[in-house]
Amino acid sequence: MKQLLIWSFLLLSTSVKAQQNPLIACWSRYEVAFQGPATGNPFKDVSLTATFSNGNRKVTVSGFYDGGGTYRVRFMPDTIGEWRYSTKSNQPSLSGRTGTFQCGPPAAGNHGPVKVANTWHFKYADGQWYYPFGTTIYAWTHQGEALQEQTLHSLSSAGFNKVRMCVFPKYYTHVEEDPALYPFPQVSFNPNAAKRFVWDLSRFNPAFFQHLEKRIDDLAKLGIEADLILFHPYDKGRWGFDSLGTETDNRYLQYITARLSSFHNVWWSMANEFDFIKTKSRSIWDVYTKTVIDNDSYHHLCSIHNGSVYYDLWKDEFTHASIQNGAAVEDFGRAILQRNMVFKPVIYDEVCYEGNIEQRWGRLSGEEMVHAFWQGIIAGTYVTHGETIEDHPNDTIFWAKGGKFRGTSPPRIAFLRHIMEEGPGPLELADMWKDHQTAQSGTGYYIVYFGKQLQSEWTFNLPKKNGPNAGTKYKVEIIDTWAMTITPVSAVFETASPDGYRIFDKQLKKIKLPLRPYLALRITAVEH
Amino acid sequence: MKQLLIWSFLLLSTSVKAQQNPLIACWSRYEVAFQGPATGNPFKDVSLTATFSNGNRKVTVSGFYDGGGTYRVRFMPDTIGEWRYSTKSNQPSLSGRTGTFQCGPPAAGNHGPVKVANTWHFKYADGQWYYPFGTTIYAWTHQGEALQEQTLHSLSSAGFNKVRMCVFPKYYTHVEEDPALYPFPQVSFNPNAAKRFVWDLSRFNPAFFQHLEKRIDDLAKLGIEADLILFHPYDKGRWGFDSLGTETDNRYLQYITARLSSFHNVWWSMANEFDFIKTKSRSIWDVYTKTVIDNDSYHHLCSIHNGSVYYDLWKDEFTHASIQNGAAVEDFGRAILQRNMVFKPVIYDEVCYEGNIEQRWGRLSGEEMVHAFWQGIIAGTYVTHGETIEDHPNDTIFWAKGGKFRGTSPPRIAFLRHIMEEGPGPLELADMWKDHQTAQSGTGYYIVYFGKQLQSEWTFNLPKKNGPNAGTKYKVEIIDTWAMTITPVSAVFETASPDGYRIFDKQLKKIKLPLRPYLALRITAVEH
Repeated sequence: MKQLLIWSFLLLSTSVKAQQNPLIACWSRYEVAFQGPATGNPFKDVSLTATFSNGNRKVTVSGFYDGGGTYRVRFMPDTIGEWRYSTKSNQPSLSGRTGTFQCGPPAAGNHGPVKVANTWHFKYADGQWYYPFGTTIYAWTHQGEALQEQTLHSLSSAGFNKVRMCVFPKYYTHVEEDPALYPFPQVSFNPNAAKRFVWDLSRFNPAFFQHLEKRIDDLAKLGIEADLILFHPYDKGRWGFDSLGTETDNRYLQYITARLSSFHNVWWSMANEFDFIKTKSRSIWDVYTKTVIDNDSYHHLCSIHNGSVYYDLWKDEFTHASIQNGAAVEDFGRAILQRNMVFKPVIYDEVCYEGNIEQRWGRLSGEEMVHAFWQGIIAGTYVTHGETIEDHPNDTIFWAKGGKFRGTSPPRIAFLRHIMEEGPGPLELADMWKDHQTAQSGTGYYIVYFGKQLQSEWTFNLPKKNGPNAGTKYKVEIIDTWAMTITPVSAVFETASPDGYRIFDKQLKKIKLPLRPYLALRITAVEH
Repeated sequence: MKQLLIWSFLLLSTSVKAQQNPLIACWSRYEVAFQGPATGNPFKDVSLTATFSNGNRKVTVSGFYDGGGTYRVRFMPDTIGEWRYSTKSNQPSLSGRTGTFQCGPPAAGNHGPVKVANTWHFKYADGQWYYPFGTTIYAWTHQGEALQEQTLHSLSSAGFNKVRMCVFPKYYTHVEEDPALYPFPQVSFNPNAAKRFVWDLSRFNPAFFQHLEKRIDDLAKLGIEADLILFHPYDKGRWGFDSLGTETDNRYLQYITARLSSFHNVWWSMANEFDFIKTKSRSIWDVYTKTVIDNDSYHHLCSIHNGSVYYDLWKDEFTHASIQNGAAVEDFGRAILQRNMVFKPVIYDEVCYEGNIEQRWGRLSGEEMVHAFWQGIIAGTYVTHGETIEDHPNDTIFWAKGGKFRGTSPPRIAFLRHIMEEGPGPLELADMWKDHQTAQSGTGYYIVYFGKQLQSEWTFNLPKKNGPNAGTKYKVEIIDTWAMTITPVSAVFETASPDGYRIFDKQLKKIKLPLRPYLALRITAVEH
């Protein structure tokens, strides 16, 4: 597990004030601040964009008002060399401002934003495979500072590389507190009124977003992607952030994308359980998604997460399918069926949680949670963790607020991540509608997962479909996915010609297996 | 089973020559013939359309050349009353021809074309539920007449209400003969040439299509929908019908839709295993589908069937998803996952076949075939049968050529159809991601399917989700899906308030079950 710690050595995105031709690392953040009008309503009245150019390449980004008369423009360069910018604004003092910076090599540990690769999978911009192993901390940024720091500390050693987190505070079972910061300035508060809070929805509260940004940068330092949930239904009149109206919703999306698009580790999740947000029509999600995409010059990953009804996951605007459905990774032969329907990566972003709470979605055993990850990964899909364990009344529940992991699944999930990152690439079922246990990454690398099935021996066999030539030699290792052990088998296996739909060892060699559930095999071609 | 025989008493679509104001039954076929030019190439040179009107309603259909100087226009009226028509043509003798007919009530047994209903299901145009229980006879119309008649006789008592059948002849394992009729006139034949047949692709062979039409009418008489496969990959140079080129493909689609759109029982299947047709690009299917839809004024059901890669099943042009994937209905919890992804009916149109041939797709047991149907139906999806049984060398294989059913599944499939048609409506899983055994049609009707699971008793329980109020009374019948028996349980059950996520009988009543696989329960609300 020590190897996981190297994921932490990542450089913070560089935020700079306007300097003369500074050096900015690739995929980090260049930021320039201008002073401008502080009167009227700068959030609404002032327009500001900047066009950055490098050779023939031009990228236009929106600036934003950050309070106190300060306007900012942020940019994430993806090409080494000199970049120039020039601003446009309806305010003369903000228009025609120019400058340059040098983009240098990326900092160690910054692989750039995550992109879709090979239809079903992900790579960082620098070409390294990215396998999402996420967890869920919906309202962690709305808790007290000490708890937020504890959450970061927990994440620093857990092995997750993505978190699902909400912009807006959450009001729901296990998380009912008012946060310290709100996205809009507060006009009045009446604890006895039906509508307790009155907000000035024509303005934003920069401090709220500055805090959110700090936390996203904190995640970046840990090598963690922030799958940022832009809307959610867990409000129901407490603050009213689920029912701001279309105009404010759109202005909020423009503001947050102007602030955050330059963060290399941001993903857009249009909503959590979009269909449970009863104040928004189904069709409005296309409008909101367009707003986000039109304002994000970097094409960050973008998805929408469902409650009990899926959105139109095939739409081009969504880079991947973010799916709530625990059943899809409960047993063999399921996860692939949903992947077959959309030509994009599938992340099962909610599959119930490891926990012990009353609600059935919060009481998976650790074994069930880990099994779900293996079910997903062998089908060429991905799974997200969440933890709803409350052993003592004062325990924070990680899924809601963060704090400490108490479950048994996180180290096993990190172990699986480690196996994936040691391997040559993402997995695909070799014979997808007939053999739901055997995944491959080319003919040189197979993973066979047995799930709950116990067996005392296994005769070496692989699917004929997408299989190796006769005479290919393999070594086999027995993986105990729960004990987190990898045990080499001493024999070397050599494939015969196909016999029916399977390929066996020439001598029909078999191996002994311990009678334990949750075993897997790693089968790797060896040189002669 | 006698009750199934009433499905046979259906009236043939009425085909009439031009009479004075004839009476045409609703959803049957009005046909009018004109004499026109027989020289040149009437298939290409002559345009002919007719606009039919009833009050403000106008429907324009294409006519077609039927050989021997005869041009025909066909129309399927869907509204009772007087219809008038007027033709347009680039030939004066065919232009401005007018006439009228009276549309009367539909003939007994003609419920009109099948349409999508309630997002996931089907109804006939007259509002009656249609549950597809199809079988597969790819090349039956290309066999000898006696075999075709035997096939119809087999279908007349089998209980299937849809067949998947190809327009073009098929060259594949178990069906390699040349047919008597071809869709194009033959220019030359050289058995020793690489390309044995040379066709005049600028013309069609009306006799081929007349024969196909007769067979589709024969199916209509049996109450069977013709799911007509417009292209398929099973040619590979034998006749060249898989590689006619885009222009001929499009003309063929225009011709066949002009001839067949007025048949109430036609469905368009753009292709079988579209991805195995290597001569056509993926993108061309959008073009071909548009050609079909633009030429079909009645909006018949339209789908495209896959080999190992799905087409874009969500596209609006496809009324339903026609899916090859046996794994999806092999076990609980799978069929629903694909239905979740598309907001249209799902028919698992190829799930492997009951048979005993070498290929693994042709060796399901009867039990497995029937189990697949139950898996599909309880998840609110549908399944299609096929039979690949060859007990003796002279046996025709029904899936390929038709002939006689030899399998054990057809009567059990008819039994399930009978149960569905007795019920109040289509089934939906009540608690779709948690309970994959319990389907409902409202709270008054539940079907619980146990599959291979044996148990000596069953405590009355239903999902809380979408469940009944406390105090609802039910009777229970034990269905043996293999023995085709329905055994009433004498007790009456009365629901308590929910206990966790389930609803039990107030006295926790249970029933004894025989220790046999493939049992189901029918649970029906009873009046006090």
